[in-house]
Amino acid sequence: MTKPAIILVKPQLGENIGACARAMLNFGLTELRLVAPRDGWPNPAAEAMAAGATEVLSDAKVFDSVEAGIADLHLVFATTARSREMSKPVASPREAAVALRTDSDKGKKCGVIFGAERSGLDNDAVVLAHSIIHVPVNPSFGSLNLAQAVILIAYEWFVSARGARSSLDQEDKEPVATTDDMMGLFGHLEEELHQAGFFYPPEKTELMTRNIRNIFQRMPLTLQDVRTLRGIIKALSKGRPPRK
Amino acid sequence: MTKPAIILVKPQLGENIGACARAMLNFGLTELRLVAPRDGWPNPAAEAMAAGATEVLSDAKVFDSVEAGIADLHLVFATTARSREMSKPVASPREAAVALRTDSDKGKKCGVIFGAERSGLDNDAVVLAHSIIHVPVNPSFGSLNLAQAVILIAYEWFVSARGARSSLDQEDKEPVATTDDMMGLFGHLEEELHQAGFFYPPEKTELMTRNIRNIFQRMPLTLQDVRTLRGIIKALSKGRPPRK
Repeated sequence: MTKPAIILVKPQLGENIGACARAMLNFGLTELRLVAPRDGWPNPAAEAMAAGATEVLSDAKVFDSVEAGIADLHLVFATTARSREMSKPVASPREAAVALRTDSDKGKKCGVIFGAERSGLDNDAVVLAHSIIHVPVNPSFGSLNLAQAVILIAYEWFVSARGARSSLDQEDKEPVATTDDMMGLFGHLEEELHQAGFFYPPEKTELMTRNIRNIFQRMPLTLQDVRTLRGIIKALSKGRPPRK
Repeated sequence: MTKPAIILVKPQLGENIGACARAMLNFGLTELRLVAPRDGWPNPAAEAMAAGATEVLSDAKVFDSVEAGIADLHLVFATTARSREMSKPVASPREAAVALRTDSDKGKKCGVIFGAERSGLDNDAVVLAHSIIHVPVNPSFGSLNLAQAVILIAYEWFVSARGARSSLDQEDKEPVATTDDMMGLFGHLEEELHQAGFFYPPEKTELMTRNIRNIFQRMPLTLQDVRTLRGIIKALSKGRPPRK
């Protein structure tokens, strides 16, 4: 059994990172990843707030980008406060916990991404996730403290150990694609589409790219699926005249 | 319908009181009671951490004793970290939330008592409660921050209102692809793949076709997704020399 990693994207205050580490360890999570922490790393302010969860902080890994921070993960949730205009499955913390538990029990590597204190996650980060976790809150006072958001997910993870299992608990014998595998697929597809003049007008490239990625991110693809899709892209593109 | 009061017994740091107020309001709780706060009341440090939940702080009532603080309540839970040698019912946060919800819906006044940061509740306070809430935690790192304990109870209270929601409960504004749409997509893709010589050796065509269809069937595609995918196929295939 593996355990989900907690990925904090551009966290601002060291105090909040420390509070997150404490919240994680309260519920048995130990793998903390930091993407571009504002004040660098390590951060003494984090230790003061960790209240003894120092092993979580000292084992924390730092990454330059969200992509790098989740490169090895098979199942990734992004927590968002606002609703997004993205066609991704939306789960409650409880539902997400069951999915994380189910996949972790099979040895898959999972993670949950949290955005910065004020701004949350930007759309480019949300796109990288397979699903969204939406925490139901008081609609007129919805801003959760970062460590509070983390503890709710960690708590649901912890109590899911005993609870119901997902009905989508099919036997996945085949290895699931990692974020790295997906990035390889997207890079391949987008390069060929670029060569084919698909992205037109050019200013729509970003939006079009995001929509296409969302189609494929929505489903859990196996490594074999990714190979098949790349075979399709290669075959369809074969012999196309080079771009003018 | 009433809502449970949160009673903090001898809270030490104003910052923690403020964080509790924020956590409460995140999940719609507004009635804060303080029993003998160490640093007096009001406390400016609380306001700084309340992040806008100032109404909860300004409405907070201060009491000299736990007895006075819960005098008007019909149902009282005490949160404890350690197990107590007391013959009282012990509930999980989720079970307690259901009980609180049931009684609140009947107009009964309910409350949950939390002890001081370091020491928790003393036995005299626990005795006054009807039941105990025991938060399941990592046995080797069980010390919850005060506001973290409050938010877990407030969260369970909040989500107990709706019961379980389906993860598929998202608003699907976009029309979902019909079988016809999918068949159109498959027909288009398979014809282009045939033209590209993808199906090789020929006797494997059926198996390969089935595998490809399964990739796309696994996810619920919208009509727009199907259009996007067909646009991709068309773009990639453009200008490929005809099959020999």
